Amino acid sequence: MKTSRQIVLASRPIGEPILQDFRLEEVPISGAGDGEVALRTLYLSLDPYMRGRMSEAKSYAAPVPVNGVMDGETICEVTESKHSNYRVGDIVRARTGWRTHATLSADTLKPVKTNGAPLTTALGVLGMPGFTAYSGMKLLGQPKSGETVVVAAASGPVGSLVGQLAKMAGARAVGIAGGAEKCAHVKDELGFDVAIDHRSSSFAAELEAACPQGIDVYFENVGGHVWDAVLPLLNRFSRVPVSGLIANYNDPESAGADKLPATMSAILRRSILVRGFINYEFENEHYDAFLAELAPKVAADEIKYREDIVDGLEHAPGAFIGMLSGKNFGKLLVKVAQDL
Amino acid sequence: MKTSRQIVLASRPIGEPILQDFRLEEVPISGAGDGEVALRTLYLSLDPYMRGRMSEAKSYAAPVPVNGVMDGETICEVTESKHSNYRVGDIVRARTGWRTHATLSADTLKPVKTNGAPLTTALGVLGMPGFTAYSGMKLLGQPKSGETVVVAAASGPVGSLVGQLAKMAGARAVGIAGGAEKCAHVKDELGFDVAIDHRSSSFAAELEAACPQGIDVYFENVGGHVWDAVLPLLNRFSRVPVSGLIANYNDPESAGADKLPATMSAILRRSILVRGFINYEFENEHYDAFLAELAPKVAADEIKYREDIVDGLEHAPGAFIGMLSGKNFGKLLVKVAQDL
Repeated sequence: MKTSRQIVLASRPIGEPILQDFRLEEVPISGAGDGEVALRTLYLSLDPYMRGRMSEAKSYAAPVPVNGVMDGETICEVTESKHSNYRVGDIVRARTGWRTHATLSADTLKPVKTNGAPLTTALGVLGMPGFTAYSGMKLLGQPKSGETVVVAAASGPVGSLVGQLAKMAGARAVGIAGGAEKCAHVKDELGFDVAIDHRSSSFAAELEAACPQGIDVYFENVGGHVWDAVLPLLNRFSRVPVSGLIANYNDPESAGADKLPATMSAILRRSILVRGFINYEFENEHYDAFLAELAPKVAADEIKYREDIVDGLEHAPGAFIGMLSGKNFGKLLVKVAQDL
Repeated sequence: MKTSRQIVLASRPIGEPILQDFRLEEVPISGAGDGEVALRTLYLSLDPYMRGRMSEAKSYAAPVPVNGVMDGETICEVTESKHSNYRVGDIVRARTGWRTHATLSADTLKPVKTNGAPLTTALGVLGMPGFTAYSGMKLLGQPKSGETVVVAAASGPVGSLVGQLAKMAGARAVGIAGGAEKCAHVKDELGFDVAIDHRSSSFAAELEAACPQGIDVYFENVGGHVWDAVLPLLNRFSRVPVSGLIANYNDPESAGADKLPATMSAILRRSILVRGFINYEFENEHYDAFLAELAPKVAADEIKYREDIVDGLEHAPGAFIGMLSGKNFGKLLVKVAQDL
């Protein structure tokens, strides 16, 4: 009998996830029924939002149940099809989660369109991370020429495109990253105007110096002490698309002083817009335009991206835990199939 | 020589303002120069935003300097004019501040348009408080039929109109007020669906029971423990226009646990829009439409309002301090001229 390996949520993490919160299982797999396709996973995308799915809080998506397969987007190959749109060997984008094989309704699959760029870009710069940057900037942040855009995790798959989109709009791009190597990449490879190391003891002063005209768009994907440094610099009518809060995921009940009054007061006094979002809400209306605009630029190397590929599904939990503390460098992917 | 009485900021308050933070002075007044008009104040409007002007924090408007006249909007009568647009006896809306007489450039004056409603409405339901409610709801909150709108200080000049605009849009209006008398007014006179006393020990549970479908628009004008109760009830894609934070003004450095991570996490997970605003930003484009839409309804008694008028400029500091703790009931005004 054929089997699939899968990683399930063994327990809800308290604070930082640990390896024991995950469990690797081997389970039998069924063939495709009517309207279904059987898939083998080529690549799994690991993303910060998954930390949220491990908790029970009310959200746009239901939490992963304990003992349930970890959720996630993948690039898969069709191994059996009972749907006329798909043939064996087709490559699709699917939401199979952290597992080597899955059988899904064909309705849930999406085509992979990369305009000749590598397949993995469909999970990165041309996939949900790229579209997160695009929708947050184009639809919410809306940087104008001469404005200042700040983004953290600037060497990551979302932040790196946020900065490049800011430059394309004629804005000043200030990137925040962890460590000298990532900062050099942000400035020299990605073309940000300034890169700042958030681990520096003078981080807040360096950020202020990098934004002499204040901040007009802050693309929020980290929270924590970066937000504390950004808040005093936000200009009147500035926009804050909130895409992630990786610094808060593991520590939702901070023990420090209450920072909410200062944040709300700044929002009030400076007419600041703060808007949480998830890329899905814009997908139907804007994903095609995103691909049409950016895929040619990626193919032409006008937009830069970087990938960090880990080999083997069994290493996904460790890689994911490392990502939450900034250990990855570029879009984190797991190569699941062994024969690629 | 003619003199004016005026109230100046004697010292910046630490926490709640006290009477000693204000000082009554008598100063000589000059006649009108070219392009100027001399005014005597009929009514002074007292509003929560003035607490912000007493502090030094960065804002849309400069703080009142220590020893400077307290800022504020007034209804005045022209007593001398050196501008062709104004004649003695004209009634105007002006920003003279807390004083009995002033000489201003005619360019700074605005006409009083109340469509036959009392003059005082130009400082209340048809003035900046009313326009604050209107712009926050029409341009930011945008309640739809069947949605739930929540507002605090619901018996006040802004909150009372927020609820009535919600009802006009076909939404459910839930008002929060302090004490049984104000709650009865909110429900019975203003027509809210529910009124909840924020002093009740079961306030959060009562709010949840009053919003069985969650909250779609929360018009924020108080902050503090009302926000804590609202946050878990905010729906996906809910909108939070932030117009004021009266509970925070006196206590910007709360000593409790840090509530910022929970707020930002909710904003992210539920795609919530939070937008600070000040009515001025919409005035040029939307004030005329506001008056055209609402003045006839006020004149026809289809929109209700309530005023709380204090007699004599010397009582302005005490009335203002009382307002910050909820002691007023309706739009707080000071009758400055003694012969009205």
